Parts: sequence; C-alpha cells; structure tokens
Amino acid sequence: MALLVVGSVAFDSIRTPHGQVETVVGGSATYFAVTASFFTPVRVVAVVGEDFGEEQLRIFASRPIDTIGLERVAGKTFRWRGQYLGDMNEAQTLETQLNVFERFAPKIPASYLDSEFVFLGNIDPVLQRHVREQLPQARLVACDSMNFWIKDKLPELKRTLARVDALVINEGEARMLSGMQNLKQAVSEIQKMGPRIVVVKRGEYGVVLFADGNIFSAPAYPLEEVRDPTGAGDTFAGGFMGYLAQRGELSEANLRRAVVYGSVMASFAVEDFGLTRLLRLTRAEIERRFHEFKNLTHFEV
Amino acid sequence: MALLVVGSVAFDSIRTPHGQVETVVGGSATYFAVTASFFTPVRVVAVVGEDFGEEQLRIFASRPIDTIGLERVAGKTFRWRGQYLGDMNEAQTLETQLNVFERFAPKIPASYLDSEFVFLGNIDPVLQRHVREQLPQARLVACDSMNFWIKDKLPELKRTLARVDALVINEGEARMLSGMQNLKQAVSEIQKMGPRIVVVKRGEYGVVLFADGNIFSAPAYPLEEVRDPTGAGDTFAGGFMGYLAQRGELSEANLRRAVVYGSVMASFAVEDFGLTRLLRLTRAEIERRFHEFKNLTHFEV
Repeated sequence: MALLVVGSVAFDSIRTPHGQVETVVGGSATYFAVTASFFTPVRVVAVVGEDFGEEQLRIFASRPIDTIGLERVAGKTFRWRGQYLGDMNEAQTLETQLNVFERFAPKIPASYLDSEFVFLGNIDPVLQRHVREQLPQARLVACDSMNFWIKDKLPELKRTLARVDALVINEGEARMLSGMQNLKQAVSEIQKMGPRIVVVKRGEYGVVLFADGNIFSAPAYPLEEVRDPTGAGDTFAGGFMGYLAQRGELSEANLRRAVVYGSVMASFAVEDFGLTRLLRLTRAEIERRFHEFKNLTHFEV
Repeated sequence: MALLVVGSVAFDSIRTPHGQVETVVGGSATYFAVTASFFTPVRVVAVVGEDFGEEQLRIFASRPIDTIGLERVAGKTFRWRGQYLGDMNEAQTLETQLNVFERFAPKIPASYLDSEFVFLGNIDPVLQRHVREQLPQARLVACDSMNFWIKDKLPELKRTLARVDALVINEGEARMLSGMQNLKQAVSEIQKMGPRIVVVKRGEYGVVLFADGNIFSAPAYPLEEVRDPTGAGDTFAGGFMGYLAQRGELSEANLRRAVVYGSVMASFAVEDFGLTRLLRLTRAEIERRFHEFKNLTHFEV
C-alpha cells in the first residue's frame, strides 16, 4: 500500500572516527524513502533548492519513489555539517544552513491523497499536523520528533501527537517528552497524549515497541564497526513503516516483524557513510540479516 | 550438580530515590547463592565477623545452601554504604569498611572439592586464581571482575582469566579491560585472554552472551519501578550459573536459557531493597516471568 513521507532532503557533510564525506545527499525523508522503497512504493513530500540536480534526483528515480511532491524552489538545499566522536552515540552539529527548508510548507499532491500509511518526519509539529489533516483517511500515521520541538513547541507537539497513531522516538526524547525517567512510565504518559503505538529507539541497545499493552524488545545487530550513524533513526522508521505498508495488516505479529526489519535496515545504513550501503543493498541481504536477528534473540522455552 | 561460589558476604546500607535500608545482609556471594539455590544446591566460600549471627545465618539455612565454607572470624563483617541517584545506573559508594574481608583467604572445605560449577565472585584476582587452582576438575568456572582490579591488578587479572571458562562482566568494564569501544571487538579481545564464554551485562539494556562464535542478546525485563539495583549483577550470575548447574549440559540452548533465567532473577531482585524480593520469590513466579521474556522477544520469521 502507498506510503507517504514528509521530511527533509539535505546535503550532509559528515566526519566520524572512520572518515568523512562532503555534501552527500541526506535528510530524514531521503533515508526513510530509500529504505522503505525496498518494501513498498513511496511518495515524498519535501523541498530542495536549485543546487539539487539530476544526479541527486537519480537516487529517487532509480527506485519506486514518487517525487511529484518533491518541490524544487529558488535558493539552496538544506545543509548540515556534523561529526561523531568517541562512542558515536550522539552527533555534534557543526553547521546548519536551513536555506529553502526554512520556509518549507508541505503541499500534498492530489495523487498522494489516498496514502494509507504516512510518516511525518522530524519537522515543525505544526507542519506535521497540517499534513496529517490533509490525509484524514490514512490507516497508520506515525511521526518522529526531537528535543528542539519538545523544548520550544510542546503545546503544538501535543496537539500533533493527539492526531497520530504511532510515535517513533529516541529514548532520551521519550523521557524528556514525558518527564518520566522510567521507560514504561514514560511510554504510558506518551500514550495518554495520543499515539497507541510507541517505538523507542535506543541506538546500539536496540528498539522497544509498545503497542496495545504488549511490549516487544529487539536488540541492535552487533556490528564490528559502525562507520557513520547518520540517518539510522530514519532508516529504522523506513524499514518499520515500509514493511507495514507492504503487509497492509497491523497485527501484533506484523508490528514485531516491522521492528526487526527496521533494525535490519538501520544496521546496514551505519556500515558506511551516508546512503552508500543502502544504495547497494539487496533484498537477499535484508532477508539474510532478518534471519540472523532471529538467531540473535531466539531461545527455547 | 554442585555449584560453588566464592565472594563477599556483607552488611549493606542503601539509599535510593524509593527509600532506604540500614545494615541488611548483602554481598556478592549472598546474592549469588540465594538466587542459584532456586535451581541447584549451592556451596559458599566467604568470611563474616562475629556480628553475623543466627538471624543472618537463617537466610542461608532456610535454603539448599551449604555454609561449611562460610568462615566466621574475630572482628566485624564487611560493611558497605551506598546510594543511587537519578536514573540509578551507578551506585555511589559513601563508605566501605572491609573489616574481616580485608584478610579474606578463601579456604575450600574438602567436601566442596568435587564442585563441577564454580563462580568466582568479584574479589582480588589472586584469590580467584587460588580458588580456581584448588578445583582442577571443575567443568565450568566463571568469574566476575570490576574496574578496580582492571586498573590496579591487570597482570594478575589476566593470569586468572587465562584459567576460567566464562567471564560475566559489565559493559563498561568489558571496554576498559579490552581497550576497545566496539562491543564485538572488545569481546574478541577478552576471549583471546582465556574465557570462551563472555557474558556482558548492560543494566537496563539487558545482557549479551558471546559463546563459541554465537551471539545471543536478551533485553532486561521492563519494570515500572526499580527500587534498588544492589546485587542485580550477582543475582544475574546466580540465575545463569544455577540454571546451568541444574541442567549439567553446556549446550548453546542451555546457555541461552541460562541468560534468560539470570535476567529473570535480576528483574525480581531490583523490585525491592536488598534480598527482600528474592527471599519471598516462588518457582512459579520465576517460570511465569521466563515465559514473559519469551513473549517480550519473540517474533515469527
């Protein structure tokens, strides 16, 4: 089933202990769309500038990604420069140029209005709600957020959360949003705000899914080397939502498998810089690692 | 099969955000023995002072715990005072009185010499090795350690590690011991030092087992409230080793189940102060939570 994502498309410059890249295509909508496109057709709502050319568009064009909603306007594309130090658990932002992203007003093309699965990437909660309201028939609307909106736009964020089915969020942000230190209590508070499904991302410690009273905990895939964590969270969300949209049915079993597919995709993404690993990934590799996840967590009762 | 533990028996005074207790029985050998005794008979090698009376001994006497090796000498029992703040991930030691523990020289009673499963609790690595050498026929010798020995007695610790089958260690200490930040690389380095089985404890993020090229990752049981984390690591080890000693056979399937039983026991221990929860625990509760762990981690391929 059709899956719509709204978020950022950006040029990233990234330095980690394993190397660096300059001005590569990134952004939440990009990581999400490329990942989800392994599972289902994806529709993108985002904005780029005049510096986003044919070469960059080919990333989308080569996959089942619809870019009618990718607006191209005068000016420069959003740019982010960051680095990861030591244990690479957190990015240090060195420079942000919002450029055309500063006045981003998401427009949903008519051909997108029947989207049944929707991911509201990490943008202003007012814009997230604006998109959500244009898609009243969606069956599963998930959103992401971050510390910046929790601190500066909490009332708006809460109005948005009241209108979504699922929140995909970092552990620290779940604590900040709820004001609770204990994860179970934090998620209970968040569920009272609206989303019945809460997916908590814990970086190298994996992901916990809370849905309708059930809890599912998935580890991260143990890698010898994490080269670049950029986009891991949006890649997770792309695998999670992509699998659900592919299956169509929101059963507990599918939600759990979706968490594992999200984790599989994130584990590939961090193996190389930017989109490099995702762009040369095969469906066979995905299935193989999905089965490795089973072996990683399975025990006989 | 018989399981021997050497470690500390102590009086703990503990304060957490949820309350406090004064001078309750604790220590690594105590948490380990009480926990493992749910699975198999346990033999204890430890030292206490004259202040350790009938009331305290009843904790052991009421269970299948052999205390012939629990030496009682002139002086006072080891005392520890600590507190946990905020997220309770680390204990702050406020006071340590080593007392009789300062000159602890573990003596293995003749009736213990046929022990096939051995846990060397977190004591001086020289003493750990001394115990290990008296039990040459043991089938599985596991040990714990801590930052203090890694910093101050690394050559001795390495000599001990060369003689054990398994190391049960905190994540931060695994990194410190190996000098590697990446967990897989850290464990590879540690396995080169001797132990073929490495169990990495990650607190609220669960446990990872590395054994013979296989990796098994188990989450922590999600609790609404952690009242007192004291002894969680030794409780984990008691469940892990207790289950293995009960089964006798060191198959991959048993090692995985042992990790889950260890996690189950640790999840109970932290629900109340000191030994309180463990002492009123039933086998039925253990089995119920073991099955809840299955539900927490299971997905269909």
